[in-house]
Amino acid sequence: EEKPHLPFVAGINLNPNGAERFYRLVQGRRSIRSFRSQSIPDLSIIEDCIRAAGTAPSGAHTEPWTFCVVENSEVKQSIREIVEQEELMNYSQRMHPQWVTDLRPLQTNHIKEYLTVAPYLILIFKQTYGLSPDGRRKRHYYNEISTSIAGGILLCALQAAGLASLVTTPLNCGPALRTLLQRPVNEKLLILLAVGYPAEDCKVPDLQRKELSKIMVKY
Amino acid sequence: EEKPHLPFVAGINLNPNGAERFYRLVQGRRSIRSFRSQSIPDLSIIEDCIRAAGTAPSGAHTEPWTFCVVENSEVKQSIREIVEQEELMNYSQRMHPQWVTDLRPLQTNHIKEYLTVAPYLILIFKQTYGLSPDGRRKRHYYNEISTSIAGGILLCALQAAGLASLVTTPLNCGPALRTLLQRPVNEKLLILLAVGYPAEDCKVPDLQRKELSKIMVKY
Ligand SMILES: Cc1cc2nc3c(=O)[nH]c(=O)nc-3n(C[C@H](O)[C@H](O)[C@H](O)COP(=O)(O)O)c2cc1C
Ligand SMILES: Cc1cc2nc3c(=O)[nH]c(=O)nc-3n(C[C@H](O)[C@H](O)[C@H](O)COP(=O)(O)O)c2cc1C
Repeated sequence: EEKPHLPFVAGINLNPNGAERFYRLVQGRRSIRSFRSQSIPDLSIIEDCIRAAGTAPSGAHTEPWTFCVVENSEVKQSIREIVEQEELMNYSQRMHPQWVTDLRPLQTNHIKEYLTVAPYLILIFKQTYGLSPDGRRKRHYYNEISTSIAGGILLCALQAAGLASLVTTPLNCGPALRTLLQRPVNEKLLILLAVGYPAEDCKVPDLQRKELSKIMVKY
Repeated sequence: EEKPHLPFVAGINLNPNGAERFYRLVQGRRSIRSFRSQSIPDLSIIEDCIRAAGTAPSGAHTEPWTFCVVENSEVKQSIREIVEQEELMNYSQRMHPQWVTDLRPLQTNHIKEYLTVAPYLILIFKQTYGLSPDGRRKRHYYNEISTSIAGGILLCALQAAGLASLVTTPLNCGPALRTLLQRPVNEKLLILLAVGYPAEDCKVPDLQRKELSKIMVKY
């Protein structure tokens, strides 16, 4: 049915110079692959970050996302085993040789120590459809785009909280991880995010980002 | 080839209480469908927001996105004509009746006045593959997820700047809009974003967001 419409009330912003200040905040984000295991951020921080992600827009307001936050070391160990087993096959057999070449600058391989070292893993599932209270299927329009947008907001929230992260999309691991976490069949793994503070000696590849003129066109 | 690795230097954050403060910032975001036409934000603000979006992570650092910023009224008029023509067919013929029902709370239809009233339209294209200088195709792994994450960061930047927006995914309009903006064939329209300040009498549907316990599961 139609929803009542209310006057729009603008929320807070970061002005003056909100856009520029926000740019300076997020430009400090880097993917890290080496975490400090001893310093565990308070769960309430992670919760606030996920609250922020949950403000994302979504097709027809379906909010088609589930954030699984893993802190338990045994669960992290099981996740690591699943991922390393599949990634060994990905790197050696499934990935096109060009793909392996394209990843060389990042010096990644199938060993994923960060999966047990990072204090939190956040597995972001997209709900490919929903279930209404009477059991009927609800369509979730554009659920991958909506959930990825929520992921983008989550990354900004983590940066605002002084936390670092690594976005990964472990190929072929979705079904086993879904089963491990006992998620229903309408949920599909979209992103596996490792979250925490960087290790003392954390290094990152010396990547450059494209300049504005390479990503923006004016009409 | 392998890239040199440098020590990771943490960027700035919003601490103390960075996560909570960030949540309060983004929870004020709403999709608006009625913009003020007279107040045109400075282009430099839009540029800073797109710079922020360009800090997004991407599969194998491919940065597979192009942001087309439309300010010219004739181009906006052409975009509106393309979208309204397709949306008329979408609402009357292409969309499943359930879809039309699911959209009723939002009171949307095929008339898209905001496309000519909003001071800026940002058309976000995902690059489904890249071209290296020697003309060979470069694979763009997970380009839809990466570009949607960049879109999420863009929405946060706009909110930080005190600007409002509407994310749309106009069904079947991609090819015509790509041609209008003379984008190459490797680019596909992902999101059409209208950006500006809300009209004085702007109303929004009285939607609730899911509580944390409905979107987060702890292990
Ligand atoms: C992928 C995606 C596609 C959307 N498509 C449309 C659209 O075509 N037309 C529209 O009016 N709103 C569209 N929306 C906006 C949603 O309806 C809106 O985000 C949702 O109702 C929640 O409201 P909020 O953004 O104010 O929180 C879209 C949102 C997303 C994320
Ligand atoms: C959709 C997506 C998938 C990714 N998958 C992986 C991955 O499986 N393993 C990994 O080490 N990094 C992964 N990354 C991280 C990218 O390699 C990283 O974002 C890119 O190299 C740019 O570096 P930056 O995030 O430090 O700016 C992924 C990023 C995205 C957005």
